[in-house]
Amino acid sequence: MNNATPINRRITLAARPHGLPAPQDFHLQTQPVPVPGDGQVLLRTLYLSLDPYMRNLMDEVGPGYAPPVALGATMVGGTVSQVVQSRQPQFRPGQLVLANAGWQDYALSDGTDLLPLDDMAQPSLALGGLGMPGFTAYVGLLDIGQPRPGDTVVVAAATGAVGSVVGQLAKLKGARVVGIAGGADKCRYAVEALGFDLCLDRREPGLGERLTAACPAGIDVYFENVGGDVLDAVLPLLTIGARMPVCGFIAHYNQASSSAATDRLPKLLATVLQKRVRMQGFIILDHYAERFADFRREMAEWVAQGRVRLREDVIDGLEQAPLAFAGLLEGKNFGKLVVRVADR
Amino acid sequence: MNNATPINRRITLAARPHGLPAPQDFHLQTQPVPVPGDGQVLLRTLYLSLDPYMRNLMDEVGPGYAPPVALGATMVGGTVSQVVQSRQPQFRPGQLVLANAGWQDYALSDGTDLLPLDDMAQPSLALGGLGMPGFTAYVGLLDIGQPRPGDTVVVAAATGAVGSVVGQLAKLKGARVVGIAGGADKCRYAVEALGFDLCLDRREPGLGERLTAACPAGIDVYFENVGGDVLDAVLPLLTIGARMPVCGFIAHYNQASSSAATDRLPKLLATVLQKRVRMQGFIILDHYAERFADFRREMAEWVAQGRVRLREDVIDGLEQAPLAFAGLLEGKNFGKLVVRVADR
Repeated sequence: MNNATPINRRITLAARPHGLPAPQDFHLQTQPVPVPGDGQVLLRTLYLSLDPYMRNLMDEVGPGYAPPVALGATMVGGTVSQVVQSRQPQFRPGQLVLANAGWQDYALSDGTDLLPLDDMAQPSLALGGLGMPGFTAYVGLLDIGQPRPGDTVVVAAATGAVGSVVGQLAKLKGARVVGIAGGADKCRYAVEALGFDLCLDRREPGLGERLTAACPAGIDVYFENVGGDVLDAVLPLLTIGARMPVCGFIAHYNQASSSAATDRLPKLLATVLQKRVRMQGFIILDHYAERFADFRREMAEWVAQGRVRLREDVIDGLEQAPLAFAGLLEGKNFGKLVVRVADR
Repeated sequence: MNNATPINRRITLAARPHGLPAPQDFHLQTQPVPVPGDGQVLLRTLYLSLDPYMRNLMDEVGPGYAPPVALGATMVGGTVSQVVQSRQPQFRPGQLVLANAGWQDYALSDGTDLLPLDDMAQPSLALGGLGMPGFTAYVGLLDIGQPRPGDTVVVAAATGAVGSVVGQLAKLKGARVVGIAGGADKCRYAVEALGFDLCLDRREPGLGERLTAACPAGIDVYFENVGGDVLDAVLPLLTIGARMPVCGFIAHYNQASSSAATDRLPKLLATVLQKRVRMQGFIILDHYAERFADFRREMAEWVAQGRVRLREDVIDGLEQAPLAFAGLLEGKNFGKLVVRVADR
C-alpha cells in the first residue's frame, strides 16, 4: 500500500460460526493506523498466535474466563509486536514485546500487558513453547498430572503446541509417553524428533484397540486436550488413581449442538468413581503469578540444552489467519501455528 | 422352625437384574447351619446393612473395586453379628462383631474381617453413621471436598446414610448446606433435625430454577452421590475452583443401558474446564488404613455431643431384604437402611 499514510488491516468477527469457522464469519477491514495518546504505545504486529481457545471466544456465550469477542470487534490474540512509537517511559521504539494486539497490523497499548522480549533469538517462541502453550503443558502435566517415573502418559494432538511439550516433559520426568496425532508424518516426528515411545495415527481405524495394545499397563496420566473419540478410547484404560488434567476439547469446539445418539456421561462418571480418577480443569491465566517464572527459567534451559524441541508452523500474511485458524481446529497445522504478519 | 436343628436362610442372586432388581432376581434358600472348623467362628446375623454399592456387584462386570456376586451365590453385605461358637481364641460366644456375613442368618469367618463392637450402645450404627457410610461422608467431604467456612455445599439423598452425614459435617465446618431429597417430610427433617440451611424436594418441578435460587453465590462443593438430573442442575452453578467428590450415582445404577437423547459429556467437560473443577472419584475401601481411626474418634464424639444425628430405617426380617433393597435404590428409605435379622 502507500508507505506515506500507512493503514491498519484488522480482521473482525463478522458472524458467530456454526461449527467450524468459515471465511464469511470474518471481515478484513482497513482503517488509519491509530495515534498513541498520552501513556500509550503504538505496536506493529510481527507474529500473531493462533490458538484453539479463540474458538470459544467466538460464541455468543463466552467460556467464562474471558469475554466473548463482540460482533464487529477485532479478533483477539497474543502477538509478538514491535514498538513503533512510545509515550510510555518503559518502552522505546524498535523494542520487541509480547502483546495482545489481536488479528491486526497495529494496535495501541497502555503498556500494562506488555512483556519485553529483547533477549530472544527467536521471539515467536514466546507465543509457543516458551509462552502460553508451553506454560499450559508445564502446569497441566507437572502440577496436575504429576507423572512419576515409569508411568504411562497419553497425550493427543501430540505434535501441536501444547501436546508436543506435554510429551517431552513427561519423558524428562521418566514416564513412558504414547502420543496420538493425525497422520503418519506427525506420528513419525513425535517418535523420532520428540522422543515419544509410540505415537498412534488417529485417522487409522481401531484407535481403541491400538491404544489398548500400546498401553499394556494402562494409562496413569491422560492430558485431555481433545475430547471426542480419544477420550472414549482412554477411559477404559485409566489405572486406579489416574490423573486427568483438562485443558480443552478441540473435538467439541465446533459441534454446533451437543446432541448425539448416546449419553457418554454415565460411562465417564463410572470410570471416575471406579478408578478413583482425579480430573481437574485448569485455565492457564490463573497460574501466571505463581508459576510462570519457574516455567520460563526451566523451559529456557531445556530448550537451550536440546532436551525440548519446539516446532513452528509459520503462515505468511495476516489475511491468511481465518483459513489457518480453521485448519488448526481440523489439525492441519504441524507444530505451533503462528502467522507472520510483518518482518522486523 | 425347629429349634433343635436350626437352619440357615440365605438369599442368593438368582439372575442379573435389568434395571431395578425384581423379586425374581433373588432366591431364598435354606440349608443347615454350617459347623465351624478349626480357627473358624460361627456368626449369627443381627443386622444386615443394605447399601447402594450392592447394585454394582449384581452386574456381570463388576465395578473393579470388588468382584461381582456370582449367580447362585449369597448376596454380600456388612452385618452386625453375634458370635455363636468360636474356634478362634480372640472371639468368645455372645460377643458382637462387625462382619461381612452377607444376606443370611449364619456365616463362618476366620476372624480376620471381624471388628469387635462390645462397647456400642446401639451396635447397628456401626453399619451407618459410625461405619462405612459415615466414613464415606467424612473422607469424601473433608479430604476431597474441603469445605471452607462460608462455602455453599450441596448434597443429594440428603437424609440418606451418607448424605445426612455430609450435610451435618459441612455445617460443623461452617459451610452453608443445601440438601436435595425426595419428599416434603425428608426435606423438613433435613432442615429441622439435621440443621441444613435449605432442602429442596427433587420430586417437585423446576429443580434447576429452585437450586439456582437456593445458591445465589453458586456451589463450591457438590458431593456427588446421585448423578442424573441433580448433576444437570448443579453443573451451571459450580463456582471457580469447585470440588466434586464422586461417591456414586444411584440414579444411573439401574439404567439398563446408557442410551439417551443427548450426550451430556461435552457439557460436563466444558464446565470442568471453565470452572477449573476438581472432580475426584473415591472408593472408601482405599482409606481405612489411613483415616478410619480419626473418623471413629471424631464421629463418636460428635454423635455423643449431639452435633451429628443419625437416623435409621429398620426393616424387620431377612426375607424383606430384596424388596427393601429395591426401595433403597428408589429412595423409599428414610435414614440408614438396615434389616433386623435376629434379636440378640
